[in-house]
Amino acid sequence: IEIAAELEPDRIAIFYGVSDIHLKYKHRKSREEALSIIAEMVEFAREHGVTVRFTAEDATRADYEYLVEVVKTARDAGADRVSIADTVGIATPIFMRSLIERLRRDVPGIEFDVHAHNDLGMALANSLAAVEGGATIIHVTVNGLGERAGITSLHEAAIALKVFYNIEVVNLAKIGEVSRLVERYSGIAIPPNEPVIGDNAFTHKAGVHVAGILANPATYEPFPPELVGRTRDYTIDKYTGKKAVKARLEKLGVHIDEEELEKVVEAIKSRPDIRYLRDEDLLEVVEEVTGKRLRLRPPENIEALVMVKCGSNIYTTSVARRLSILPGVREVLEVTGERDIVLKVEVSTPVELNQVIESIRSLRGVEETYTMLVLKRLSNT
Amino acid sequence: IEIAAELEPDRIAIFYGVSDIHLKYKHRKSREEALSIIAEMVEFAREHGVTVRFTAEDATRADYEYLVEVVKTARDAGADRVSIADTVGIATPIFMRSLIERLRRDVPGIEFDVHAHNDLGMALANSLAAVEGGATIIHVTVNGLGERAGITSLHEAAIALKVFYNIEVVNLAKIGEVSRLVERYSGIAIPPNEPVIGDNAFTHKAGVHVAGILANPATYEPFPPELVGRTRDYTIDKYTGKKAVKARLEKLGVHIDEEELEKVVEAIKSRPDIRYLRDEDLLEVVEEVTGKRLRLRPPENIEALVMVKCGSNIYTTSVARRLSILPGVREVLEVTGERDIVLKVEVSTPVELNQVIESIRSLRGVEETYTMLVLKRLSNT
Repeated sequence: IEIAAELEPDRIAIFYGVSDIHLKYKHRKSREEALSIIAEMVEFAREHGVTVRFTAEDATRADYEYLVEVVKTARDAGADRVSIADTVGIATPIFMRSLIERLRRDVPGIEFDVHAHNDLGMALANSLAAVEGGATIIHVTVNGLGERAGITSLHEAAIALKVFYNIEVVNLAKIGEVSRLVERYSGIAIPPNEPVIGDNAFTHKAGVHVAGILANPATYEPFPPELVGRTRDYTIDKYTGKKAVKARLEKLGVHIDEEELEKVVEAIKSRPDIRYLRDEDLLEVVEEVTGKRLRLRPPENIEALVMVKCGSNIYTTSVARRLSILPGVREVLEVTGERDIVLKVEVSTPVELNQVIESIRSLRGVEETYTMLVLKRLSNT
Repeated sequence: IEIAAELEPDRIAIFYGVSDIHLKYKHRKSREEALSIIAEMVEFAREHGVTVRFTAEDATRADYEYLVEVVKTARDAGADRVSIADTVGIATPIFMRSLIERLRRDVPGIEFDVHAHNDLGMALANSLAAVEGGATIIHVTVNGLGERAGITSLHEAAIALKVFYNIEVVNLAKIGEVSRLVERYSGIAIPPNEPVIGDNAFTHKAGVHVAGILANPATYEPFPPELVGRTRDYTIDKYTGKKAVKARLEKLGVHIDEEELEKVVEAIKSRPDIRYLRDEDLLEVVEEVTGKRLRLRPPENIEALVMVKCGSNIYTTSVARRLSILPGVREVLEVTGERDIVLKVEVSTPVELNQVIESIRSLRGVEETYTMLVLKRLSNT
């Protein structure tokens, strides 16, 4: 607390587990001892001039009467906020709303946060219920990252506040960008069916859905994708009609006449084994059908495979490990054959690629490199 | 309906959009016309001897009085169930519970399903609220797959019913297996922080969390991971203590003495740049510290990179496309260099690998293959 106070923060958070199970097994303290510790710590921080939020860890499993004592203690010791933590994610919305309502009634003069874990998939619903009960801060993380299944995610909380209450707390149009950034640095991928930020969040597939969307997007969208800086999309597959194919091609900057369009749709239907067509696949069909050569869009990043031959007096894995932490290196495979290691490299410019290759070549144990640029990527669907 | 009836199904579902926006833009029917159509279709199916569930699509955006008429019409025409669909996922739990309660009161003699979309991340909470309101069936899909952000997921609904109401409707221990199977065939990955089935759902990282778990797992777990056929785990990183490292090594079948253990923990702390250590990484540290050679566990699947040289009189992409649909081929890269295409192949046995290579070699346009077995894989963290 002293070290934190020296940094002159806006606020510090002090937490203590307040359920009997946390008191008994983690802290090995009685309820009374815990109250003294909480009072002492909060007062100590306040004496150092710091604003304090007290977090009642595992509050949703605590005895209610004791929780009231805890909140009163924190308030009387000088905390201006108390965070009600659903530490193992077992609250329900109705319980959470009523818990905050009762606490506000029983302990006036302090504001409440909600910190909801997502172990049962209820973090968002519980956070919104807490707000309905009178909580004024929701704890979120980008992409919902956190212990185990994480906590309430920024993107879900932000859009729910907007749609349900018309409250806008962040720049919604930037949410996807932030999520992608964190995805990249955390290495924790956003699934395509994730609400708001997932690749498919605004993708319509079923024929009846696409027909509805073409008549009026509101038929199958809770809010326009533009609200979060996205655009709607349609799956192109054997069930797709001319309108949707034409719309997609125009989005790709390709204009074909009615006759060609019919042939393209027919060609798509004639290959029922292809589950769905990516833009590249669709352009290929158009190329085949029309005989036109459409320039495939180059990949946004430069990808390369770099094969490395190691010296024979060196432990290959130790080279592989050092290669794996170089910036730009995405994957490292130790393989059989003339060369020993294959690296997948992803960079933005040829200059960066050169830097990566040079840093690979400068590593002790690397005898030879052989670099192949990736021209196009297809995945098996 | 006639074709469906010939298949003698247990039940068929007939759906119709009942919100004004669906009626006006999608169906282009008046409210009265829609009631006639619903009655006619349900009766027609009943005359063919089929049990019918009627789905009131977009019910959560429909006028309540009209929705009552719709449900009455479906019931009187012979449907035994009505599904209340939250088609764009904009319901809240409190609204959903009250909606089902009111419908049950206003239209007796029929049972209700809930079909909740997840556009705002509320599908699970809304489904449970519907059950509290008296719905008797929740629609789910494995991994929550469905249009856009999908619908309520099986794993979340199943565990929530168990934890909140002690209702067990499926074999919980098999849920992860089913999810992995669907992940594999759908190509839609389960994120590591997904509740119940994600890799990290039972992984503890923060020191205070790990300490709590070691004292009593219930401190930081809403239910024991064994309930869903999982085991708990700890992140090994620079903050990890001896107890957790020892526990992990023993899980890997590696026994080291106290002195070695101290050295291993020290070695981990001396590399703060490594964010966290996978099992393979930990074993490597143990190898380095103790000088013991620990057998790295072989990958469960056989992975290989197959490089393909194409004939020069052939369009490389057409070869790549045909290669990409071969079983066992996971990724296809067109590259620069001596050879033109690199395939990532994943199979279970050497026999399968041979089959894949033979099928690659038998493709028109393939002139030469060069296969490298993957011995070990490292990813950049």
